[in-house]
Amino acid sequence: MKNYKAKLGSINTFIFDFDGVLSDGMVLLTEEGHYLRRTSVKDGYAMQLAVKKGYRVVIISGAKAEGMYKRLYGLNIQDVYLGVPNKLKVYEQVKEKYGLKDEQIIYMGDDIPDYEVMRKAGVAACPADAATEIKEISEYISDKNGGNGCARDIIEQTLKLHKKWMNKDAYNW
Amino acid sequence: MKNYKAKLGSINTFIFDFDGVLSDGMVLLTEEGHYLRRTSVKDGYAMQLAVKKGYRVVIISGAKAEGMYKRLYGLNIQDVYLGVPNKLKVYEQVKEKYGLKDEQIIYMGDDIPDYEVMRKAGVAACPADAATEIKEISEYISDKNGGNGCARDIIEQTLKLHKKWMNKDAYNW
Amino acid sequence: MKNYKAKLGSINTFIFDFDGVLSDGMVLLTEEGHYLRRTSVKDGYAMQLAVKKGYRVVIISGAKAEGMYKRLYGLNIQDVYLGVPNKLKVYEQVKEKYGLKDEQIIYMGDDIPDYEVMRKAGVAACPADAATEIKEISEYISDKNGGNGCARDIIEQTLKLHKKWMNKDAYNW
Amino acid sequence: MKNYKAKLGSINTFIFDFDGVLSDGMVLLTEEGHYLRRTSVKDGYAMQLAVKKGYRVVIISGAKAEGMYKRLYGLNIQDVYLGVPNKLKVYEQVKEKYGLKDEQIIYMGDDIPDYEVMRKAGVAACPADAATEIKEISEYISDKNGGNGCARDIIEQTLKLHKKWMNKDAYNW
Repeated sequence: MKNYKAKLGSINTFIFDFDGVLSDGMVLLTEEGHYLRRTSVKDGYAMQLAVKKGYRVVIISGAKAEGMYKRLYGLNIQDVYLGVPNKLKVYEQVKEKYGLKDEQIIYMGDDIPDYEVMRKAGVAACPADAATEIKEISEYISDKNGGNGCARDIIEQTLKLHKKWMNKDAYNW
Repeated sequence: MKNYKAKLGSINTFIFDFDGVLSDGMVLLTEEGHYLRRTSVKDGYAMQLAVKKGYRVVIISGAKAEGMYKRLYGLNIQDVYLGVPNKLKVYEQVKEKYGLKDEQIIYMGDDIPDYEVMRKAGVAACPADAATEIKEISEYISDKNGGNGCARDIIEQTLKLHKKWMNKDAYNW
Repeated sequence: MKNYKAKLGSINTFIFDFDGVLSDGMVLLTEEGHYLRRTSVKDGYAMQLAVKKGYRVVIISGAKAEGMYKRLYGLNIQDVYLGVPNKLKVYEQVKEKYGLKDEQIIYMGDDIPDYEVMRKAGVAACPADAATEIKEISEYISDKNGGNGCARDIIEQTLKLHKKWMNKDAYNW
Repeated sequence: MKNYKAKLGSINTFIFDFDGVLSDGMVLLTEEGHYLRRTSVKDGYAMQLAVKKGYRVVIISGAKAEGMYKRLYGLNIQDVYLGVPNKLKVYEQVKEKYGLKDEQIIYMGDDIPDYEVMRKAGVAACPADAATEIKEISEYISDKNGGNGCARDIIEQTLKLHKKWMNKDAYNW
């Protein structure tokens, strides 16, 4: 954990999985065959603030739905990769595109498809209810469950460390 | 807490944030890009009763959705301010419009966009799962989470103190 | 509690409130202004079984929605009274219509609009998360919350006492 | 429990009930009369992996909805029996169709309509919040509730025992 805190200093990019991290890991099944997800407004607040403060926020998810795009674009997140079969490939593309090093990236995932990327990213983090295998390789396990504030937890810690959390801007959406 | 109870005597206006106070802070993402919220029927009962008994109930939210307007108007709440970027400004407008003093107002919020208003309102209250910064400045922290009875909690306490809680009217919606 | 068990012997009618008893007391707000409710399949199983075994199952709710009617009729419940402003009046009508005595009726409610009826019914029961005033007048408080098996709890107890719970019929919906 | 682990060796078929096992046992009631269910993405991951590894995954449910078919087919599950009044009959048909023996089958159910089949299947398993009668006849009671990872729990245990859980394939959906 000490290690984890020290590493937050160089972070300028947050990468999140969607299901089980930005959502509670459940999908509501409509009769039209859509999967509706629930996301936290407190997480959303933190993500849009991070963008406003100049951090890069990236989403890499195996799932894909119109509602996910709309939510994420609504928070001013531009790097949205949905329907991704292999996350490691996209992770490397993002790094190259923006000239990033692994140690500038914190990745939060919750299940086995996140495993390989999490071994690469500078900091590996996960929600309290992540899969066992993911907890084992995480340097930080949030006390919040997926969809219930785990994304905000790591953003808040990082921005506080960088003295960018609470100030005038923070009061307006 | 003692302070809080004493202050309830002069309250005639309840102001609530929506997400995380009247809802559980989650939004369900539809494919059309709508955000659907869940609210408590027990909270709704208390709000319509407060209106019926002559209290002013006001909603100030950064969010905005047709479903929110319909729910709130259905409870006979007239002062509904949605899509508000800066809550303090609307708070001052409401005060002026109705000739209210700060000490007549209880404000319940849960996150940083509520911070400035809560420093002004006569009584600052929040749900059990509010953000840390909000809990720090709240005179009353409900034992109920957002969307799970926290609004009813403060309405019930206030109306009981004023001897307006349970009586003949109360049995009908 | 002893009293409660003894009284179950003469019960042939179950009356349930909907919001907070057959649902978890939350409504999902759609953009069209509908309120969507969640109900338990385990409760549904018990209610259709009670009907099949010859018990009368009655719903009296202040709320009203197409989805509620469809769910209840789908369980073969015929006595569905929705949008009821005063529950006591409907309670008396049901009694007269079927020639029932108070002691043949168990009523499960969770909030103040149920108060007056619960003082009349033979047995007053409520979910674990009912309002304080309702718990005070309940002879039985289920250990299950609203929408989470409280209706099944009292049906199961009654049918077991009457030796009508588990048998051949029970395996098929 | 010892018995249970020993028996997993010969399992090649998983049969699941839907409501209360693959879902949390709640249905959201729409105004059109549809019942929407919530299912876990972590359960879904495990089910598609089991199919990919050559296991048979079968669903037998008394309920029936378009959204259920679409979800299950989307996970490459082919044996989907919905709207089944008597589960034992379908269980026997599945056995005959694929030439299966009882001891090759693990069945996870949560309520009385699952009772008879669970007495026949090689291993009877249930979620933590199953009905009392079902817990009594289950050889394995998951520590996860319905819709919250109980299906994954038994798939994961079985595939781990067979050395088919985590490997190259596992990282891609």
